[in-house]
Amino acid sequence: MSAAPADDALWERKHLLTLAELSAAEIRYVLDTAESFKEVSTRSVKKAPALRGRVVVNMFFEESTRTRMSFTLAAQRLSADVIDFSAKTSSTAKGESMRDTARNIEAMGVDLMILRHGSAGAALDLSRTVDCCVINAGDGQHAHPTQGLLDLFTIRERKGRVEGLKVAIVGDIAHSRVARSDLVGLRKLGAEVTFVGPPGLAPRAFEKLGARVEHDLDAVLPEMDVVNMLRIQRERIESNVFPSVREYVRFFGMNRERLRRCKPDVLIMHPGPVNRDIELAADVADGPNSTILRQVTNGVAVRMAVLFLCNQAASAASRAAALAEGATTPP
Amino acid sequence: MSAAPADDALWERKHLLTLAELSAAEIRYVLDTAESFKEVSTRSVKKAPALRGRVVVNMFFEESTRTRMSFTLAAQRLSADVIDFSAKTSSTAKGESMRDTARNIEAMGVDLMILRHGSAGAALDLSRTVDCCVINAGDGQHAHPTQGLLDLFTIRERKGRVEGLKVAIVGDIAHSRVARSDLVGLRKLGAEVTFVGPPGLAPRAFEKLGARVEHDLDAVLPEMDVVNMLRIQRERIESNVFPSVREYVRFFGMNRERLRRCKPDVLIMHPGPVNRDIELAADVADGPNSTILRQVTNGVAVRMAVLFLCNQAASAASRAAALAEGATTPP
Amino acid sequence: MSAAPADDALWERKHLLTLAELSAAEIRYVLDTAESFKEVSTRSVKKAPALRGRVVVNMFFEESTRTRMSFTLAAQRLSADVIDFSAKTSSTAKGESMRDTARNIEAMGVDLMILRHGSAGAALDLSRTVDCCVINAGDGQHAHPTQGLLDLFTIRERKGRVEGLKVAIVGDIAHSRVARSDLVGLRKLGAEVTFVGPPGLAPRAFEKLGARVEHDLDAVLPEMDVVNMLRIQRERIESNVFPSVREYVRFFGMNRERLRRCKPDVLIMHPGPVNRDIELAADVADGPNSTILRQVTNGVAVRMAVLFLCNQAASAASRAAALAEGATTPP
Repeated sequence: MSAAPADDALWERKHLLTLAELSAAEIRYVLDTAESFKEVSTRSVKKAPALRGRVVVNMFFEESTRTRMSFTLAAQRLSADVIDFSAKTSSTAKGESMRDTARNIEAMGVDLMILRHGSAGAALDLSRTVDCCVINAGDGQHAHPTQGLLDLFTIRERKGRVEGLKVAIVGDIAHSRVARSDLVGLRKLGAEVTFVGPPGLAPRAFEKLGARVEHDLDAVLPEMDVVNMLRIQRERIESNVFPSVREYVRFFGMNRERLRRCKPDVLIMHPGPVNRDIELAADVADGPNSTILRQVTNGVAVRMAVLFLCNQAASAASRAAALAEGATTPP
Repeated sequence: MSAAPADDALWERKHLLTLAELSAAEIRYVLDTAESFKEVSTRSVKKAPALRGRVVVNMFFEESTRTRMSFTLAAQRLSADVIDFSAKTSSTAKGESMRDTARNIEAMGVDLMILRHGSAGAALDLSRTVDCCVINAGDGQHAHPTQGLLDLFTIRERKGRVEGLKVAIVGDIAHSRVARSDLVGLRKLGAEVTFVGPPGLAPRAFEKLGARVEHDLDAVLPEMDVVNMLRIQRERIESNVFPSVREYVRFFGMNRERLRRCKPDVLIMHPGPVNRDIELAADVADGPNSTILRQVTNGVAVRMAVLFLCNQAASAASRAAALAEGATTPP
Repeated sequence: MSAAPADDALWERKHLLTLAELSAAEIRYVLDTAESFKEVSTRSVKKAPALRGRVVVNMFFEESTRTRMSFTLAAQRLSADVIDFSAKTSSTAKGESMRDTARNIEAMGVDLMILRHGSAGAALDLSRTVDCCVINAGDGQHAHPTQGLLDLFTIRERKGRVEGLKVAIVGDIAHSRVARSDLVGLRKLGAEVTFVGPPGLAPRAFEKLGARVEHDLDAVLPEMDVVNMLRIQRERIESNVFPSVREYVRFFGMNRERLRRCKPDVLIMHPGPVNRDIELAADVADGPNSTILRQVTNGVAVRMAVLFLCNQAASAASRAAALAEGATTPP
């Protein structure tokens, strides 16, 4: 695969579970690989042969149309066969455990499993259950590493670097795996992260994770290079924090007026789907500072890189195992 | 792609929204292209490489298993990657607008969008929102252009021509996008169209569209070359028109007795799925005058032609844009 | 296709409806073909070109995620295009019959139909309706021939032979198409089959089918080479047979203690998904005598063989028909 960087030693993982376990060098290596794959996506023939004859299975125990489509397109673009496992209509409905389901699917001859699950730790658990590659596509409130990587990729692409940047992540920090994965990735690459939200959603205790925590959005905006607006859930706002979403928006929504308080070249990010005119005003979402659609485009390239690298590491490991087996005579 | 006609200048559209915007020459060009693709479908290896590395997304906001399957098979037969966007489980359920959804999907790197939607005008709206190709697979009661094309294709194939033929379209004209698309296509190619149904379903006002309107099926049958029986919806009949479906069938159902009033070589068409022994008697549906299954077969060939031509036009346009950009120096 | 055995004359069927219609030689031929395909599944590039340009449609009128995935992976591994027909969202919901649906799907240009249906005889009915290949993926309580074949394959692989082996099938025999297909296949290849269960689920009348029927599991275990534990349905047990599932398990569940009564090299089989610690104790399911995951792996190879052979027979038949048509002048 000519599009791939040559130095394989930099990536020896067959799973991607969380950014916390990656070194800064590993993260940069994924981003570099993604850059070479982004070029494939701009061709009229959007195909690289890297995963031909490999099988990728989407195991979505929580539905997420966008993330599933992004992984599917990434896998197809690498010439893999893709198959969906739908948790709703499956034997898990008959009481089978996720582990049994996974072992069965693996036995059919699957190379990479993409897991979305409601419970934190599900991806780690799966990686201990099967031999094939496991990519975490979001587990509970724990981690969403490919979202973290695509946010890093987009920042690096637009700003030329991540190191030294000031990044605000705004909204419901407490329940967000995106906030966690972004924080970890950004800090590893040398950015400073500020969590911003009302105390109930951005508690002071999160400073232990290495972020600054602030409750006054207007005060922090002027110094920021990047502002990442999280999607809010109306129910959560109205039951816990403010009497109404309108009240929340008054303090924590990004709009044209607040954009004027920011640096002129600030990046406005959002993991999507946007609640237009709630956490993010429509004109800002569609304006020149917004990176929202670019994040979506980059998501496919980043996922191509992750699929490619994890599969490569798994193949190398199984070749090494086969060699070792050939070299020694079993008793 | 050797199967394609040489004269590209005849088709410069990247969208297919309605037959109303096409010239007679353009319609004939699609039909000719479909003819060359029909041959591919009869091979044991049913594959042409024309759309290799292109991504086709089915965006069905209204479910239609048959139409979705027909487009999927057409796209696969041209070697495209196909992905389904399911409106039910997606972020549109979270309140995202169709435009936002479409922009996001396009950002993932999609070349052709197939849209089925409950609202008239949705396809036009989508074509103004995205840069990729948009194929209307039925929007509200407005248009269903590929159904119109496959009906024209089938008539031309069986009768050798469309010009000068007399075609009756029978049933619930008022609510039928098939009737509208057939009418437009048939008139452009020189056929005479008669709408037949009870006044509540085939109102005299439709004469403004260029059709004759009649309420007595038996009276018009003897002069017809083609009779296209629309699918009726029981609820609509029983609530508005007749006390019972049985009463409707007595006046407007096609059966063996009525077939005897027709020319011996009359074509009996139906867009499917048939309500057997309601609008169409089972023995007529399965008899030698029926073209129902041939319409289904031709639907795949016509959709291959539409996908092929729209993609080709989009590629030509983007090549031209790239050339123009290379030639001029931006300020 | 170099992986395929040379002697085509041994397989001339384009449908696989039930094992009852196959000779022992035909069954062995499928198993031999599956063996050569199993090798493909162990490669890193899991692809054979045998069905390139062929279209396989999954028609599942009863949902079964595993069986559908297994057939899909088998078809993809042979380079076929695969399309799902979902009975729930389709025009069958609009009252269309299975026959009309099938004729329509066939008219789109489909080569092989995989049918799962709730009614015994549905596969035979379908094979009389369409010209393309029909593979029975389970019809009511009648037959599940690919399950029978994969069980035979697994026994032969682990034991080196089927002839002369003693096989117990344990549980709800009365309602099981797996028990029926296993019985037929095992007897054709020369094994002795004992059905074991409470009288309500394993009635003496089944001796007419050629099986021994016993009600005391502990008594028969010591002589068995293979014990196939069927999945039980809690509702069926509790309403008809025993006051509680726990009571059933006490008499008919396989566990470590009962395993000690068996031959040391007994095979413990299960068609999946397992009710852990109900019909089968977790430690036995995961132990060295268990073949459960191997059955799943072999299922893909067996289905590849079935798809390959039926398609080959259909192609040969249509070539022969074309030749005959060319040779004779129609009147």
